[in-house]
Parts: sequence; structure tokens; C-alpha cells
Amino acid sequence: MPLIGFGLWKVTKSTCADTVYNAIKAGYRLFDGAGDYGNEKEAGDGIQRAIKEGLVKREDLFITSKLWNTFHAREHVKVLAKKQLAFYGIESFDLFLVHFPISLAYVDPAHRYPPEWFGDDGKVHLQNTPLQETWQAMEELVDEGLAKNIGLSNSQGSLILDVLRYAKYPPAVLQIEHHPYLTQEPLISLCKTLDIAVTGYSSFGPQSFLELNMGRGAQLLLEHDVITSVAKSHNKTPAQILLRWATQRGIAVVPKSNNAERLAQNLASDGFDLSEAEIKSISSLNQNIRFNNPGEIDPRIAIFA
Amino acid sequence: MPLIGFGLWKVTKSTCADTVYNAIKAGYRLFDGAGDYGNEKEAGDGIQRAIKEGLVKREDLFITSKLWNTFHAREHVKVLAKKQLAFYGIESFDLFLVHFPISLAYVDPAHRYPPEWFGDDGKVHLQNTPLQETWQAMEELVDEGLAKNIGLSNSQGSLILDVLRYAKYPPAVLQIEHHPYLTQEPLISLCKTLDIAVTGYSSFGPQSFLELNMGRGAQLLLEHDVITSVAKSHNKTPAQILLRWATQRGIAVVPKSNNAERLAQNLASDGFDLSEAEIKSISSLNQNIRFNNPGEIDPRIAIFA
Repeated sequence: MPLIGFGLWKVTKSTCADTVYNAIKAGYRLFDGAGDYGNEKEAGDGIQRAIKEGLVKREDLFITSKLWNTFHAREHVKVLAKKQLAFYGIESFDLFLVHFPISLAYVDPAHRYPPEWFGDDGKVHLQNTPLQETWQAMEELVDEGLAKNIGLSNSQGSLILDVLRYAKYPPAVLQIEHHPYLTQEPLISLCKTLDIAVTGYSSFGPQSFLELNMGRGAQLLLEHDVITSVAKSHNKTPAQILLRWATQRGIAVVPKSNNAERLAQNLASDGFDLSEAEIKSISSLNQNIRFNNPGEIDPRIAIFA
Repeated sequence: MPLIGFGLWKVTKSTCADTVYNAIKAGYRLFDGAGDYGNEKEAGDGIQRAIKEGLVKREDLFITSKLWNTFHAREHVKVLAKKQLAFYGIESFDLFLVHFPISLAYVDPAHRYPPEWFGDDGKVHLQNTPLQETWQAMEELVDEGLAKNIGLSNSQGSLILDVLRYAKYPPAVLQIEHHPYLTQEPLISLCKTLDIAVTGYSSFGPQSFLELNMGRGAQLLLEHDVITSVAKSHNKTPAQILLRWATQRGIAVVPKSNNAERLAQNLASDGFDLSEAEIKSISSLNQNIRFNNPGEIDPRIAIFA
């Protein structure tokens, strides 16, 4: 799995195909999508165009997607995986993740897709599908060749340990929010022990959440003195410092950009090394600030409590 | 369930029967034991003496115990619960908790009891019993009248939410480490939402861990300026302030003392109220310091990551 990929969350739908196509042209090989992002068809169009034009072969790409909360029941997992594969025009995901360890009432994709968090009545409806049922359905995807690897996202240590007790195929990857304000050392250390690769999302911290009014008033990491001074001394951008802070410790990243220059800069963020002291000073910004917290949508799904 | 109980962890075995007997005499009605504490027989002796002498009836008491990690398999849960009930000389626990969401290899009680964390080779041996299997065996204890209520201990939010998806009987109680250095507001708030009562252990923070050399150099809460000044203004002991800080917010406590005077003081910690401002100032001491962390015994059981 490449350490630097392209994240599809909030990639503008109308330009997504071009953005993905250009990202491949710029050298990106990993694309991190999700049913919930609402742009898988467009991402697939961009990928197929690049393949058609001979820029890459399918096997050069690493395509990740995620199962949404409303499809945790055994009978829905495969149907949705197949639907999502069809959007991309591919036979198999390189990685398919359980997006959240949250099970919500089924919504027929014909009725609304992606279904997001709320029912037609504007409320969150829980569904009692144990994670074990969902995980076993995910394992069937592997057996049938619909996913080469499966994993978890947004999961705490004790839940991962429970999955390992019943897993035929242990999670290959855990994807979590990860930036200098939320360093999550114990969870990353546990994943290392368990041989589970870690992908960090929202590498720039508050930046991704500003447009959603979810920035929590936190100082922007891209403008934070500690980050900008390290950036200056390496002649790199603050974004490159934040990405390298993760990848140098073996944590994969999936930044997105709708801007061609930044997109290229993000990919070029591994051509230098930070010193141990620099990594430490960045890590010491930790404040356990979590920007993506479902407990704020509904207190009954406070999965990070 | 009484808000103030007597915790049996580290109660000296040789004097445990007397301590428990005297605690009942002093007015304690809840006793919080565990297979792992190694003093259930002695605690039971003290309880039986008090009942025999007519100090209390069995139904006046609330007796809690816990299932140890090595007995998570379906076939061991009931055997151990019955063994533990026999120690107390009672028919049914008022509350029986899964001590940790950690499954370790079975140890025959005839070989070593309590088995603690390590095998004969000094290593931790995992066993792949999913929590669902353990929980369903716990539910059978309820069906057979061996436990009136069942619950969890040392569990994170996402794991509790998963248990609720398959539970016939949802956990009645969550017991967690809880003191001003580890306030755990999100988890306590989730339990409130889910109608799960919370019991806090190690209410005095580092105090309980000093003799185990696990105090982490943290300043003693019983000597902390914030606590002692609140104590002075209420003419109470620092211990009483720490207990009331919990119980006033509806969190049960299970302090232990081997000393008769302190034992009485702890029980008398509910005869006054802290102001909102005092509660806030105590809560603001939070540093997310966890003294009881199995991840330090073996990184593969880092259940709080």
C-alpha cells in the first residue's frame, strides 16, 4: 500500500473525474474513497479514463473504499460492495473498510444514495447488527475476490482486539483521524503490535473541517509556528511537513486537494526527513482534539467515548 | 445500588473477614469484590458472620463480583460464578461484571487461583473468546438466578455499543477507573445516554497504586491544593471531597480502607454538597492519567488504546 494516497472526501463531484485523472497523471496511485463521499462514480470515470489512455494499468492502482453504516447487515454488505465496484468499473477493491463501527437502519439505495446519517425524519436510526456479523460479511468479500484486503476505520483498541478474536482475516488496515492535535500514540502503537497498518486522515487537522464549521476554533496547523518554522528550515510547505510527520513514522496519509499544485506538493512530501527532535516537537502539539466525532451527531453513537 | 460501597481490592486477606464485618457494622451495604482480588472466601466469612449475628439480612446487602479474564469461555463462566458464590456463601450476586474485556487462556482453579495475568511461564497467553460469547454466558447467569444484574468493567464506548447490539440483557453497570486525573466525561456521558450506571474505582487516584509502585510520580490527590482547600472550606477530609465529587454527579464509588476511622469517614461522604464551581475546579485537574492499564502488562492487551 503506498504511503501517500489521494483522499476523495469532499472532492467536488462536478470536477472529480478530472481531479482523479490529473492526480494519476501527477503520480498518485492510491485513491481513498467511500460510499459516503458521494463521488465514487466520478472518481471511477477519472480512473477509467487514465487506464483507457494508458497512463496506468489497473494493477498499478490501489483503490480503497468503505462500507457505510446503513449497510452493516450481512445481506447488504456484498450488494453494496458490488454497487461501489461498479461505480469504479473494477472487479475488486484493494482495500475495503468498515467506515464506522456504527450500525444504522438500512436505507434502500434506490430511495437515497448515499444515505448519510439521518433517516427521512431527520433522525438517526440505530440497527442492532453486531460488528461480528459485518466483519464476517466483509470476509466473504475476500473469499469471493471482491476485496483483496479488508480493514476498519474509526475504531478503538478494545473493539479491534475483539474483532481479532473472531476474525478469519484480521484487519489489514485501520484508518483513523490523525494529526498533531490528535496523535493517538497508544492506538498506533497497538496497531504496530498487532501488525495492522495505519492510515491517518485529516492530516492537516482543522483545515478540512473549516468549510463544515467544525474547526472548533483550533489554530490552523498550516499556520502554526511549530509547523511553519520546521517548513522554513526544510524549504518545504507546512502541508508537506504535516504529511512527512506521519509517513516518516510509517503512517499512510490520504490528503485531498482540488488544486493541481498542492496535489503535486502533497505527493512530493516524502523526499526529505525530519529530525527526531522535529517529530517530537510536532507530536507535542497533541491536545486530543477530535474533529470527526459521531457522538456530536447523536449521543447514542459516541464511538470514541 | 448504593452510591457508596466498600471495595475489596487489596483488602488484607488475613484481616479481610473482620474488615468486612466491621464495615457492615459501620453501615456499608455494598461490597465490591472480584475473583482476582484473592479474598472472596474471607469477605464471605465476614458477611456470613454479620448475617448470623443479625446485623443485616442477605437482602440488605448488595454484593458485586467480577469474572476474571481466564474464564471468558462459555463453559467456564458459570463454573466460576458458582465457585465465587460459594466463597460468599450466597445464592446470587446482585451484580456480576466482566472484569476486563480481555480473554486469556484458561487456568484450572485447582492449579492456581486466582490465576492473575501470567501463565506458568511468566507470559500472557491470549485466548480468542469473543466478548459476545462471554456476554451470552453472563446472561445465562441471570436466567438461572446466579446474578441479578450483569455489567462490564474497563470498557470503551465503541465496545459497549457493540455489546448492546447483541445483548438480551444490556449491561446494568460499567465500572471504570475514575478520579480527578482521569475524569472520562465522554464515557460517563455515553453511559448516561444508554442508561448504564457508572461505578468509579480508584477514587483517590495515585493513592491506591503507590504500594504497587504504579503512582507514576503524580501528585497525591489527597494532598493536592485544590482538594485540600475545598476540604477545609467544608470541614471534611480530602478523601470525602474526592468521593463526593463522584457521588454528587451520580457516579458510585467503592473506596477501601483497612482503617476503621477512614472507613466510617468514606461512608459519611454524602452528607454535604459541593458547589458547581467546586466540582468544576476538581474536574479541571483532569490529565487523562490512567493508573490501571493492561497495555503495560502486555502490549497485545492495550484495551484503552
